[in-house]
Amino acid sequence: MEPKVKAAVKQVITPAELLNHWQGHRRLTRRTIEAFPEEQLFTYSVGGMRPFAVMVNEMMGLSAAGIKGIVTGEWISVKELDYLSGKSAATTKEELLAQWDTVTDEIDNCWAQLLPEQFHENILAFNTWEGETYAMVLYWIDNEIHHRAQGYVYLRSLGIEPPAFWNRA
Amino acid sequence: MEPKVKAAVKQVITPAELLNHWQGHRRLTRRTIEAFPEEQLFTYSVGGMRPFAVMVNEMMGLSAAGIKGIVTGEWISVKELDYLSGKSAATTKEELLAQWDTVTDEIDNCWAQLLPEQFHENILAFNTWEGETYAMVLYWIDNEIHHRAQGYVYLRSLGIEPPAFWNRA
Repeated sequence: MEPKVKAAVKQVITPAELLNHWQGHRRLTRRTIEAFPEEQLFTYSVGGMRPFAVMVNEMMGLSAAGIKGIVTGEWISVKELDYLSGKSAATTKEELLAQWDTVTDEIDNCWAQLLPEQFHENILAFNTWEGETYAMVLYWIDNEIHHRAQGYVYLRSLGIEPPAFWNRA
Repeated sequence: MEPKVKAAVKQVITPAELLNHWQGHRRLTRRTIEAFPEEQLFTYSVGGMRPFAVMVNEMMGLSAAGIKGIVTGEWISVKELDYLSGKSAATTKEELLAQWDTVTDEIDNCWAQLLPEQFHENILAFNTWEGETYAMVLYWIDNEIHHRAQGYVYLRSLGIEPPAFWNRA
């Protein structure tokens, strides 16, 4: 235990903790997907907003292509990203969850290749958005929290209790 | 510039950057409050959820009492926090925004007293939730993103365009 604490004490958050923070949110989003009835996942909307499955595509696109971009330095374009986000390749909840799990593995694999000093490197994500790596990763996490919360409103307005926000296990 | 970069490079995120991340989200939440029509801020609901002003009270209670608790080691109880969250002391948008700005200053002032090594100290927030300080702060930020996004759905369903999610200035 001692070496872990000593290393951690110098950091606000370690790379391993940030990964777990991210994947903890992704575990909660996965439960949010599961909570939707199959049909409403792909069709239901409040206030003219996108169905939750389309928001999930956006999350997966940003996360998977984003972490790959950070690690490889090779970025798909925003146009390609928009295409990934806009389309719903998955047509069933099961397919969508399978894609989700693939992205989970991709994030873990890419993260293992990330060097601690990279978090303050300036990048041009998707050849479009400039910023430091840590801020970009936080942005993708925040974007997921944001759209998942909109999914919570969809669920509530369908009379379905969303998963507990505090549970990231 | 050089010393700043060198110091930053050792950290995924520095204390100053985490504060700015938090306050950036709070600036966006402030604009979300401003976007609501006065009446709907205190009354409008989708799916039986709380009006946005009540969610804002929760955010302010957690943030202000939370950061004070971290810095002083003295915590109000969950009961008191629930009371703070449940009531809407402010009855106008102007009052609510004034309270918001007070909390902004309180966070800045408390943050200045926070020591870097505290981020990995275990705390019992509000004498109830156990965890490391960094995780608690991230939780409060995430909780704000979550409820603000629900406010976005309220705005959309009222036909009002919410503020740009990416703008944290």
